Amino acid sequence: MKSYAPQKIKTLGKCTIDSPMVKDSHNREHTAEIFVCDQSVTMAQNVFCPRDDKGECEQRCNSSTETAFKFYELAGPREKIYFDPSKVRAGIVTCGGLCPGLNDVVRSIVLGLRNNYGVKNIYGFRYGFQGFVPDYGHDVVMLTPDVVDGWQDIGGTCLGSSRGPQKPDVMVNCLEQLAVNMLFVIGGDGTMQGAMAIANEVENRGLKISVVGVPKTIDNDIVIIDETFGFQTAVNAARDVLRCAHVESKGIPNGIGLVKLMGRDSGFIACQAALAMSDVNFVLIPEQPFKLEGEGGFLNALHKRLLRRKHAVIAVAEGAGQDLLEAETETDASGNRRLGDIGLFLKDKINDYFEKIDFETSVKYMDPSYIVRSIPANAHDSTYCFSLGHDAVHAAMAGRTEMIVGKVKHNICHIPMAHIAGKRKKVDLYSPLWRLVLESTGQSVVFE
Amino acid sequence: MKSYAPQKIKTLGKCTIDSPMVKDSHNREHTAEIFVCDQSVTMAQNVFCPRDDKGECEQRCNSSTETAFKFYELAGPREKIYFDPSKVRAGIVTCGGLCPGLNDVVRSIVLGLRNNYGVKNIYGFRYGFQGFVPDYGHDVVMLTPDVVDGWQDIGGTCLGSSRGPQKPDVMVNCLEQLAVNMLFVIGGDGTMQGAMAIANEVENRGLKISVVGVPKTIDNDIVIIDETFGFQTAVNAARDVLRCAHVESKGIPNGIGLVKLMGRDSGFIACQAALAMSDVNFVLIPEQPFKLEGEGGFLNALHKRLLRRKHAVIAVAEGAGQDLLEAETETDASGNRRLGDIGLFLKDKINDYFEKIDFETSVKYMDPSYIVRSIPANAHDSTYCFSLGHDAVHAAMAGRTEMIVGKVKHNICHIPMAHIAGKRKKVDLYSPLWRLVLESTGQSVVFE
Amino acid sequence: MKSYAPQKIKTLGKCTIDSPMVKDSHNREHTAEIFVCDQSVTMAQNVFCPRDDKGECEQRCNSSTETAFKFYELAGPREKIYFDPSKVRAGIVTCGGLCPGLNDVVRSIVLGLRNNYGVKNIYGFRYGFQGFVPDYGHDVVMLTPDVVDGWQDIGGTCLGSSRGPQKPDVMVNCLEQLAVNMLFVIGGDGTMQGAMAIANEVENRGLKISVVGVPKTIDNDIVIIDETFGFQTAVNAARDVLRCAHVESKGIPNGIGLVKLMGRDSGFIACQAALAMSDVNFVLIPEQPFKLEGEGGFLNALHKRLLRRKHAVIAVAEGAGQDLLEAETETDASGNRRLGDIGLFLKDKINDYFEKIDFETSVKYMDPSYIVRSIPANAHDSTYCFSLGHDAVHAAMAGRTEMIVGKVKHNICHIPMAHIAGKRKKVDLYSPLWRLVLESTGQSVVFE
Amino acid sequence: MKSYAPQKIKTLGKCTIDSPMVKDSHNREHTAEIFVCDQSVTMAQNVFCPRDDKGECEQRCNSSTETAFKFYELAGPREKIYFDPSKVRAGIVTCGGLCPGLNDVVRSIVLGLRNNYGVKNIYGFRYGFQGFVPDYGHDVVMLTPDVVDGWQDIGGTCLGSSRGPQKPDVMVNCLEQLAVNMLFVIGGDGTMQGAMAIANEVENRGLKISVVGVPKTIDNDIVIIDETFGFQTAVNAARDVLRCAHVESKGIPNGIGLVKLMGRDSGFIACQAALAMSDVNFVLIPEQPFKLEGEGGFLNALHKRLLRRKHAVIAVAEGAGQDLLEAETETDASGNRRLGDIGLFLKDKINDYFEKIDFETSVKYMDPSYIVRSIPANAHDSTYCFSLGHDAVHAAMAGRTEMIVGKVKHNICHIPMAHIAGKRKKVDLYSPLWRLVLESTGQSVVFE
Repeated sequence: MKSYAPQKIKTLGKCTIDSPMVKDSHNREHTAEIFVCDQSVTMAQNVFCPRDDKGECEQRCNSSTETAFKFYELAGPREKIYFDPSKVRAGIVTCGGLCPGLNDVVRSIVLGLRNNYGVKNIYGFRYGFQGFVPDYGHDVVMLTPDVVDGWQDIGGTCLGSSRGPQKPDVMVNCLEQLAVNMLFVIGGDGTMQGAMAIANEVENRGLKISVVGVPKTIDNDIVIIDETFGFQTAVNAARDVLRCAHVESKGIPNGIGLVKLMGRDSGFIACQAALAMSDVNFVLIPEQPFKLEGEGGFLNALHKRLLRRKHAVIAVAEGAGQDLLEAETETDASGNRRLGDIGLFLKDKINDYFEKIDFETSVKYMDPSYIVRSIPANAHDSTYCFSLGHDAVHAAMAGRTEMIVGKVKHNICHIPMAHIAGKRKKVDLYSPLWRLVLESTGQSVVFE
Repeated sequence: MKSYAPQKIKTLGKCTIDSPMVKDSHNREHTAEIFVCDQSVTMAQNVFCPRDDKGECEQRCNSSTETAFKFYELAGPREKIYFDPSKVRAGIVTCGGLCPGLNDVVRSIVLGLRNNYGVKNIYGFRYGFQGFVPDYGHDVVMLTPDVVDGWQDIGGTCLGSSRGPQKPDVMVNCLEQLAVNMLFVIGGDGTMQGAMAIANEVENRGLKISVVGVPKTIDNDIVIIDETFGFQTAVNAARDVLRCAHVESKGIPNGIGLVKLMGRDSGFIACQAALAMSDVNFVLIPEQPFKLEGEGGFLNALHKRLLRRKHAVIAVAEGAGQDLLEAETETDASGNRRLGDIGLFLKDKINDYFEKIDFETSVKYMDPSYIVRSIPANAHDSTYCFSLGHDAVHAAMAGRTEMIVGKVKHNICHIPMAHIAGKRKKVDLYSPLWRLVLESTGQSVVFE
Repeated sequence: MKSYAPQKIKTLGKCTIDSPMVKDSHNREHTAEIFVCDQSVTMAQNVFCPRDDKGECEQRCNSSTETAFKFYELAGPREKIYFDPSKVRAGIVTCGGLCPGLNDVVRSIVLGLRNNYGVKNIYGFRYGFQGFVPDYGHDVVMLTPDVVDGWQDIGGTCLGSSRGPQKPDVMVNCLEQLAVNMLFVIGGDGTMQGAMAIANEVENRGLKISVVGVPKTIDNDIVIIDETFGFQTAVNAARDVLRCAHVESKGIPNGIGLVKLMGRDSGFIACQAALAMSDVNFVLIPEQPFKLEGEGGFLNALHKRLLRRKHAVIAVAEGAGQDLLEAETETDASGNRRLGDIGLFLKDKINDYFEKIDFETSVKYMDPSYIVRSIPANAHDSTYCFSLGHDAVHAAMAGRTEMIVGKVKHNICHIPMAHIAGKRKKVDLYSPLWRLVLESTGQSVVFE
Repeated sequence: MKSYAPQKIKTLGKCTIDSPMVKDSHNREHTAEIFVCDQSVTMAQNVFCPRDDKGECEQRCNSSTETAFKFYELAGPREKIYFDPSKVRAGIVTCGGLCPGLNDVVRSIVLGLRNNYGVKNIYGFRYGFQGFVPDYGHDVVMLTPDVVDGWQDIGGTCLGSSRGPQKPDVMVNCLEQLAVNMLFVIGGDGTMQGAMAIANEVENRGLKISVVGVPKTIDNDIVIIDETFGFQTAVNAARDVLRCAHVESKGIPNGIGLVKLMGRDSGFIACQAALAMSDVNFVLIPEQPFKLEGEGGFLNALHKRLLRRKHAVIAVAEGAGQDLLEAETETDASGNRRLGDIGLFLKDKINDYFEKIDFETSVKYMDPSYIVRSIPANAHDSTYCFSLGHDAVHAAMAGRTEMIVGKVKHNICHIPMAHIAGKRKKVDLYSPLWRLVLESTGQSVVFE
């Protein structure tokens, strides 16, 4: 039995209150059956290779061994909850860069609180963590189903956002002042670290405020979870831009379509979008360093491609080839390392290379980041956001705190914030994803 | 160890030939590492409740017990393959109704055969199984990368399709005549039964022809696999129609937007699209019978909704409420039971109901099926189709037969055709999906 | 000089007040130059054939003669206006069926009133003319720039609409009660007749209320003006459906894609959308009766097409072939003649025809009307609506009444309501439009 | 009568051959009536102000006087044609930058030649004028309806393009060698000058080769004609990017969305797209110089806007504010003046300005040019391209040469190439278009 024990989730206390969902929302005969039982778990890893005693696969495969078993508590409504719904005062904040689905998540939290639990006091904090800090002078918005009506069709965040942390004690002061006892934080890695600092301060003060996160990163680089919301919408938009690059490259002799896509540390968007188009000839990602010059280098491979087909399409993630640039050491407001611009760097290198050998080409360079991230969520992501928002509400009502909701092998679970903070999921170079990219592009660049 | 044994896949014989992918396609130092090892498996079920000894959860939950463990062989390229690539003559056929991604799968198979294995003889059979039958007089098309160029941007199937089976011996005659030793069959449940009949006839004749399926159903009702290709594209299109219905319903006093969506036996499209919009007020699916008349019946609930909000949106799967119709017993060419038209039936019932009580409404009825299924695949589905097509090729090259490729908890696997034939995945009324539909709609219809 | 005299527009009185636009909105050196002069006109007809003295062209052409000259007053801001902006109380109402751009027009009127003239009291009447009638109990909405924010991205009408007239005296009572002195009416032919009745009642009572119309008809059948707003958006959506029909028709042997498009009396959508796709094989419109049966009839021509190409696409306007149906005599709430359903009629006739001769076909029938009309306006229509709304405001401020704004040969003008009421623009069978349809389809149906 | 004489179009000789369209394509009773008569004309200017004797409007309006009358020959099929269709060998070439609709025009020419006149020899030259020059070694493609099937759904040009002229005698050598007697040239201003050089060389050699142009410029800056094909599609795409900019600007405190749009010399795309969104706050175009610094300068106005609303959206045409840059003197391959990058320039200036006054903002800069121009045509542009291509064919068959087809006040006409060469249509600062931009943005920048 022990092997099924889920990863420990912090709670504010025992759940003793009957969920109002029993009587209000559904009218099945056996209403209890809509609830998730307290023991149900999902398994985080499900690919196995039954290796020999030394833990080695004869074929040197990459599948996990049994010891990797890890379980997470399933998300969903509980029969018994921690908070008295009539006393809940909830807050919602969106932080960091834009991502499709932000408004869907906010709307879903509002609808989940109101429709399932009858919660009426829901505050929207403006412009990220700035919204908790009096100095900035931002308003607090009351959120109701009417206010969030239609938000699922609007890109970006209607609450506004900002980058960077604020002082935990100032933020918790604000929560206390508004008597908020349930805070929903939507943001990326830095934001979740900020949320943990809030939760910590809350605990130090002996307060009972649930802090639940919905992780947001358009790069899809959160560990453990299958996929972050907005990622598929972004891939779809990126695919459309790659199609434009393909059209441009074919429209002129030796045309080169060069598209810089998001992906600071992880090349998921570039890989997925390139597979979706499958007319991309080179995919360059942070995880796979590559040689630029010389036989078998990228420029040489590009030259060969042009000689063979008269056009080429390149998808490069913004974090690729950073070793090739003199990496700048500055960091931005969120504490992220500033990246040198690999897109413009490659554009220059390509132009130089072909000018030197007097080979006429035309590079069409596209940097569509803002266009990709500011559109409304597609249906898949809207559905996913709706689920995440509702399950975040259920988790908070059941007193869970310092945790996030996320899909793990197709099931939404509760995951301790500490499990994802400070980590980044990367494209596994031995995974089917990268293998398919290699099969699709046939790229013969020498990787190092 | 035994517990990791995957479900048995039929093979044509031992794999003794070195894969050409080792030397041709990639230039990693350790090329072997792109291959999938022969023992790797994925687990089909990953939600568990550690019940008591009697196998009962105190909270009557729906999660599986340990005994449900089942493993499937991972898909992907093998280091040793069965067929000598230079002797492969492949055939591809698409059957049944249209579905986004059909052309993507065909194109991916062509590219996978050509680019990874150098296969040059690839036949496209026209108009489904009819293409194997001389009487119909359809051409056979030679497929090359040039021929399938751009197919990923075209809806439907460029090969054409048809419904219904043809005689296995006639079809195998055709395969023999063209010396085809590898057949890729893309189609639904009926098609897979046809493919099994072909595989059976092939075996009876002692031939060595690999028959590999890629299951296609826009309803997403194939058991075992996570999701069928094209499903998300269809959901996205259905969501857009639901948005139109919402706009129409709000444009007139007591406007009712009534949308019939695909789903003969399974309401997945209706559920997912309704969650993506989350302005839908009633979702009616085949899995959940409902009461039409009387207190708490659908019409009464609709009436209450209109009194409260002056408009309503209804998503009804085509297979819903069949008990309410005098189900016709006819079957169509594919052997599917003919459904009575629940959409028009409801439209009439709604109009009658409100006319009787002299309550002015306006029903806007939409039946967008063809529009939903004939569009090109979105990026997600294109990527999925690209993966499926390539993995189908790898499976066939490795001599697997009478199997399909499909994603099982995020990993593409080999699944015996017999495991999916004649079965249908349904919306589990105790799953998070249906729960979220109930939370989103707040529909208070009495279900029976 | 006399020949330039524009068509007479009714006015409430002399314009004596300085437009606030002089000082507020622009800071050009010569501010007067933003205003339209009082004599400027546009010419309604600009294709001429200099015929012989008898007025006959040797080549029997269709171009107009000089005598058709007709001029309309140009729309735009006037230097002197009739109303004191501080005393304006405006009303806006949308009537009839949905059409892309309705919200854009409303929003533009609100922005035009507020930003150019500082008008603050703007009422939105709900649900068409019903909104003026106390019995219905609909609210009146205050419209501000904040309220209409984002409306350009929403389909349908946020004000709601309804069909059919209401009593003029009841409606003018409502206007008097609210002290509205400027009414903007957005709707079709019936609506404009209603607006004329209001203007008449206003005049009878000696009131000074400007009544300005913005004609709306997705069928593009308003006489005089180039094109109605929303038409191009509808054509674009209809084209997408025709593409689906094309895909469906090619997906099965002898597939027939049959699409019913809007167009009660005028086939503009069918013609334009068919040209945009130019893979449509038959276009049937109300203006051109056709033979169904017999040699050279539609069914025979369709048969020949299928024998030649194995698939066919048909675009049929809803008002086509009404003589072939036993036309029902009912009228709908707007007083429009109820049309028999030519789409279902043709579907049945086609099926019967081919069943009789034992020729297997498959008709895919699509009726996308609601989907075509409830989407948001495309950029062209949004721009057009923005212009119309602003020019409607300028006209009303200058005291014009019982008139509409509309584009005449590329210039927005003032047109008396009486000029368009009760008339319908039709597809001219000798125009380039219909000629191009014949060239594109090559349809060899015998027209009668 | 004389006043109706159209602008003189060059012809190769007298039209003496009966058009095959009489008997083949249509079966009206009076087939002649599909033809355009030889005298029909359209009028180029249709806005008039009946000024006083000195030609001055009291209100200093901008409308034309009567003396501006100018007529153009209507396009369309002629009853008598110049070329014997069986002897026609046609060539098609696309030149210059990409523009939505290029493939539509090519396809329409192919269909028009084949379906209306039975022409079978149609050559597609690859990569613009390079395709005529043997040194480049590009293939010539045979174009048939099958080859161009589906091209209307593909962006860019399937024939390829290039910039810059080639020697006329080399090009005419190529035409002679292939016995081409009809050349269709699709391109911009430089291309039309190249076409005139070809026509000139053809005339000098005494050849009978018709040279007909279809003007292409995404900037919509061709004089005389209403609008160039692809323009509306580009505006629609640009509008979508402006919407993204709006979302980005609202997502962060003092967010600034800065979008550089196409428009070297003319700001039509920026103006139209800004009106379509009508949430744009500043529109900067080449036609209207503006002050950057100081009270009332752009930066000061932007500051005021941010203080008032916390976000701002700017649309800047690439040719705007060139006086503010140190204009570079280089020219590109087409002989166009190289523009300094106003987008990056403004971005830097804005950042500098607000840094200096320590006012935190965030500029989101977008340069979507390739994305805007490489997409397929929308329905309106597809229809327009279909018309242009067919009318270009009719003109060439009737022996017209050194002319273009284009829409003039809603009617497609024949226009001498010399009338448009070397000129550029500009946004008239006293037109309704610019007036509406000022009304919509309320931009209070001091223009100079």
